[in-house]
Amino acid sequence: MKHATVSVDGTRLKSLLDGVNQFGFSPETGGYNRLAFSESDMACRNWFMEKMQAEGLDVRMDPVGNVFGRFGPADGPCVIVGSHLDTVADGGAFDGSLGACAALEAALALRDANYAPSCAIEVVATSEEEGRFGGMLGSQAMTGQASLDWVNSARDSDGVLLKEAMRVAGLDWARVPEARRSPQDVKAFLELHIEQGPVLERAGCAIGIAEEVSGVCYLEVQLSGVANHSGTTPMDLRCDAFAGLTDISASIPELIAKLGTEQSRITIGKVDLVPNHPHTIAGRATFSIIIRDTSRDVMCALRDAMQRRAEDAAERHGLTFTLTPKSWLDPQKLALELAEATEHAVKELGLTYQRMPSGAGHDAQTMQTLCPSGLIFIPSQRGISHSPEEYSVWSDIENGANALLHTLIKLTS
Amino acid sequence: MKHATVSVDGTRLKSLLDGVNQFGFSPETGGYNRLAFSESDMACRNWFMEKMQAEGLDVRMDPVGNVFGRFGPADGPCVIVGSHLDTVADGGAFDGSLGACAALEAALALRDANYAPSCAIEVVATSEEEGRFGGMLGSQAMTGQASLDWVNSARDSDGVLLKEAMRVAGLDWARVPEARRSPQDVKAFLELHIEQGPVLERAGCAIGIAEEVSGVCYLEVQLSGVANHSGTTPMDLRCDAFAGLTDISASIPELIAKLGTEQSRITIGKVDLVPNHPHTIAGRATFSIIIRDTSRDVMCALRDAMQRRAEDAAERHGLTFTLTPKSWLDPQKLALELAEATEHAVKELGLTYQRMPSGAGHDAQTMQTLCPSGLIFIPSQRGISHSPEEYSVWSDIENGANALLHTLIKLTS
Repeated sequence: MKHATVSVDGTRLKSLLDGVNQFGFSPETGGYNRLAFSESDMACRNWFMEKMQAEGLDVRMDPVGNVFGRFGPADGPCVIVGSHLDTVADGGAFDGSLGACAALEAALALRDANYAPSCAIEVVATSEEEGRFGGMLGSQAMTGQASLDWVNSARDSDGVLLKEAMRVAGLDWARVPEARRSPQDVKAFLELHIEQGPVLERAGCAIGIAEEVSGVCYLEVQLSGVANHSGTTPMDLRCDAFAGLTDISASIPELIAKLGTEQSRITIGKVDLVPNHPHTIAGRATFSIIIRDTSRDVMCALRDAMQRRAEDAAERHGLTFTLTPKSWLDPQKLALELAEATEHAVKELGLTYQRMPSGAGHDAQTMQTLCPSGLIFIPSQRGISHSPEEYSVWSDIENGANALLHTLIKLTS
Repeated sequence: MKHATVSVDGTRLKSLLDGVNQFGFSPETGGYNRLAFSESDMACRNWFMEKMQAEGLDVRMDPVGNVFGRFGPADGPCVIVGSHLDTVADGGAFDGSLGACAALEAALALRDANYAPSCAIEVVATSEEEGRFGGMLGSQAMTGQASLDWVNSARDSDGVLLKEAMRVAGLDWARVPEARRSPQDVKAFLELHIEQGPVLERAGCAIGIAEEVSGVCYLEVQLSGVANHSGTTPMDLRCDAFAGLTDISASIPELIAKLGTEQSRITIGKVDLVPNHPHTIAGRATFSIIIRDTSRDVMCALRDAMQRRAEDAAERHGLTFTLTPKSWLDPQKLALELAEATEHAVKELGLTYQRMPSGAGHDAQTMQTLCPSGLIFIPSQRGISHSPEEYSVWSDIENGANALLHTLIKLTS
């Protein structure tokens, strides 16, 4: 174990993070705006690539904007390590960028220690992980899951075509299939990420080792009633779309208790009423239902039960009702051998840890379809992310980067 | 009863309504847009005033834009009859305009019948009844309820100052107090209006005679939690503002059953979530609660109970909570003698009718603070109003206008 004492250079890691976060900062909100394929996102990718090149790594950008920096043997298979550089609108300073910077720092620390990996290490900064266009294009393209049909037609929520956003960013959508990696070329994928939830903080754990990633079912429901006057319409003659939504929402705790698990989450986060006027009964309610669990069967049971509740509520309140499945992502088990490698590494580092599921989606779950993949979490203060308030304390960040570094040593020595 | 056979001229009434509705029509929506003091509202008022002048009535516009046309004795007290000409955004063809046009038609029918009223009849088209600036300025100014302080500071929902809108309309806000009428000058006020609810249609009644008008309590509630990730935040660690709102909304039927009456209405019609994103737990929910009843005590009991539910929900879900009383309007009993006059008139006309409360606010309730006031309803198809779909069948309109005409005869013969 001659590399047991190697550790990341916190100063350099901080400077890498600061370098990434010079792109897309909004002084008004305090948040970061590197929406996939935006000017700031591409500028950040180019900066990251130049940085890796200046450090002597062998760099390239693939046709979907994933940026790679290779260290070690020029030929043969590699271990890919990294995360994404794109953000949601007004996102935080750590979501994705920490994982990309920690991966680069780990490679540099190994280089500085004259470490000779048994196979190449490719640092990656993936593109479009946040789903501006409804997927995880960077890792989906690497794993052959981004069909040209889909790339040709995908749009963001403002109606901008993915292929047009790629064109403006200098990328050719027709070349997306060329981003695909061969299973023979990739031995493993490893990602460090902030937890984006409160579990580690509550448990007082430094490190989370993800064993599986919850699936996600996104339903859009529309209830239509009659937008009558709130004063003249007796309660029993109403067709109140918000009253229907209330019944559906109120049933969530009971449904989870009956059909769900500790990993079940049902969220109604987006609600739009029409006309949305205080003195008018809601004539229409359009809302999202997000169902997550680590079991596909549980997800199906919860989805079916929510649909029955929506049908019941519509009938009870004299509403018409549509339910549109917007997306479905199966739960994904991650590689046991990578979780075990990380567990050994964090034990040696003397860090507290727990194995846990990931409630959020990450590139690691997509990469698992190509190669054994692992995902390491560090605590998020108050569980906040996708927000300018997203924060992780520096000691947790360094601990996480060292856990990544030493897992990487176990995979490549 | 020499005027028992007088009746309105349906053709002329139709042409008056069409004349009013040439102003503010939107071909895109099919609705009418005569927001108080807008260009179309003022053009309509001027057209109505010119029409009355052409018919030989003695006309004037008061300082808040109320338009009067006097018929009968030039001096002495009068009976005022009419309704408003302003509309909500994309409102219907009958709300307000029917009552103003039917009042003018009634006066013209009496003039044509050489009727000599015992006191003057003043046809009125009131201004700003729909509450663009949060009140019923036309009738409030006539009854001395529009303070200069309020007029000086009132704004519409876009932040436009009432006094500025009046200035643009050619009206001087500082002269509002001059619109006040003396109780000695006004013997009674009478208004015909569409019901704006489904009760008459369901009951198969031609005429509704309002005995009282429900009060209105408008509360704005804000629940604030934490806008965390919908996947990473376990259900029991959430501070979900929409889950809090759900609990409050779900309690409405039980609260009305326990504390309310048949006239109770509680409506949540406006809901705004932040960030309003499917994959994010609602960090903030801002919503309206409108409570109506014909009893002030019942309104108070419902308001207090709703507040307790909001407190409970906030505590249960780890939310902070503000409740802002936006407005309060007491229930108002209307004049029994006017209801009886209308009842006699509709009986003589052989029309079906019922006495009923008014769930919506009308100028009549404000005028009742100055003089005995009466309010006559005709059916609204499917109870729809404040919408381009608002509709009343022509036979109901003529019946209502004749009920108004013959009540007027009873008040002035």
